[in-house]
Amino acid sequence: MNELDLIRAIARWSGNTLIGDDCAILTPPRGRQLLVTTDMLVEGIHFRFGVHSAHDCGWKALARGLSDIAAMGGDLHWCFVSLALSPATDREWLAGFYRGLTALARRHGVSLAGGDLTRSAQLSADVTVIGSTPTGRALTRSGGQAGDRLYVTGPLGALAASGYSLRPEPRLDTGLRLRRLRATACIDISDGLSLDLHRLALASGVSARIDEVPIASGATLEHALRGGEDYELLFALPPSKRPPKGCIRIGSLTQGKPGTVSFRGKRLRAQGWDPFSSR
Amino acid sequence: MNELDLIRAIARWSGNTLIGDDCAILTPPRGRQLLVTTDMLVEGIHFRFGVHSAHDCGWKALARGLSDIAAMGGDLHWCFVSLALSPATDREWLAGFYRGLTALARRHGVSLAGGDLTRSAQLSADVTVIGSTPTGRALTRSGGQAGDRLYVTGPLGALAASGYSLRPEPRLDTGLRLRRLRATACIDISDGLSLDLHRLALASGVSARIDEVPIASGATLEHALRGGEDYELLFALPPSKRPPKGCIRIGSLTQGKPGTVSFRGKRLRAQGWDPFSSR
Repeated sequence: MNELDLIRAIARWSGNTLIGDDCAILTPPRGRQLLVTTDMLVEGIHFRFGVHSAHDCGWKALARGLSDIAAMGGDLHWCFVSLALSPATDREWLAGFYRGLTALARRHGVSLAGGDLTRSAQLSADVTVIGSTPTGRALTRSGGQAGDRLYVTGPLGALAASGYSLRPEPRLDTGLRLRRLRATACIDISDGLSLDLHRLALASGVSARIDEVPIASGATLEHALRGGEDYELLFALPPSKRPPKGCIRIGSLTQGKPGTVSFRGKRLRAQGWDPFSSR
Repeated sequence: MNELDLIRAIARWSGNTLIGDDCAILTPPRGRQLLVTTDMLVEGIHFRFGVHSAHDCGWKALARGLSDIAAMGGDLHWCFVSLALSPATDREWLAGFYRGLTALARRHGVSLAGGDLTRSAQLSADVTVIGSTPTGRALTRSGGQAGDRLYVTGPLGALAASGYSLRPEPRLDTGLRLRRLRATACIDISDGLSLDLHRLALASGVSARIDEVPIASGATLEHALRGGEDYELLFALPPSKRPPKGCIRIGSLTQGKPGTVSFRGKRLRAQGWDPFSSR
């Protein structure tokens, strides 16, 4: 097995032609800004052999970037996959990984446009996703106003409760609706509601109050507040605007020290998934 | 040390503001196509602690992508750095890495626009570089014609002879000159002349003949043919065109079986740096 054999096999598994030049040549959509995000998935940190299937790993490696594009209200275009293969990854694992990634990519019309292949003692995958919005229309974290209402796109904690073994569904459609609706601020809940709401409030220069936390079936309040990997969007709307169907009101943005979050009358610590924390 | 502290430190070392939204928002240049490349650098495969300095690792992590953009005649815009830190990487190493990367980025006007941070047992860095060319003007591997002359931008084998511990200089300026000159085919010699010339000839549907191999001071013919990591460009020009100053003629493209390369009257095996080979 050499690099060229592997690239040919990947082209087959993913249905893409990847043998080409030193760079991918892409025509950017006119009148638009690009959204670019990169996310690294590491064996032992983000998944474990034996617990998570190769298909689920490929799916999740792409899902994280898609969720970032969703949070900014973007349309999707291309992805790039850099993979450092470990001795534990055989051809079968690799086929499952690319099939999982491709299954999610097709669902959302993303093209696998390139990447890199190398080896390592521990498997890691870095996925770059490129999307776009009309110029000046990307949703950001920083436009929230005191008085805006806060919503999430669904109940939280499902992935944490499952041992992170579900196939998450990034909220691309809702992200587009929120862009058209001109939500004032938006973020995806990748590191837990507590930490990501702190980030949104800090960027917007306001405080936040949580009144209700919608908890997924089988999950606990702790999963919902700090479990992370929710792949749901958290967003702010002025009181005059109605949220997209299925979204759940959780509280409000308020005047106060930027980034402070309260829940049931008490201050909530900004704590969630952090690969560098001692948790 | 948590993720936010690290991101703040990186912003300081690199002189960039990186604390922001879920994606970078980039305005693509008008009337142009984008060039995108990703390259992964892994400890133990591409560099070793104790042998290569943190500064050199940061430099090289970016240099590989810049060389890919140079090979397609691109102008440079942005880069993204995903880093999985190992327990062996302390704050000092990380500062050296970002300073090395930033030193090369500044030299070529590339902005660090984002990335990801996580941890791993073994350090790996994945760098995405985005450049552009006017639409339809990117240099590719596939336009070479029988009769074209082959050139390289400098003597080969220097990095292999040095134990890969030099700071390579990607040939961006020459790449731009070759784009204006409309070189028929171009590739960077990242995996050794033997393998990369095979790739160019195969993509162009022609054979190639090497007459002369310019060998860097201190290097051997083997280093020059198969050492890899040369960061020089290999390109083809019709006989009517003069190459940029400093370039060295090495042979010609010829009619024959696509991808076949001959040297001193014998067929040269397409063999070079391959992380999956048994070498």
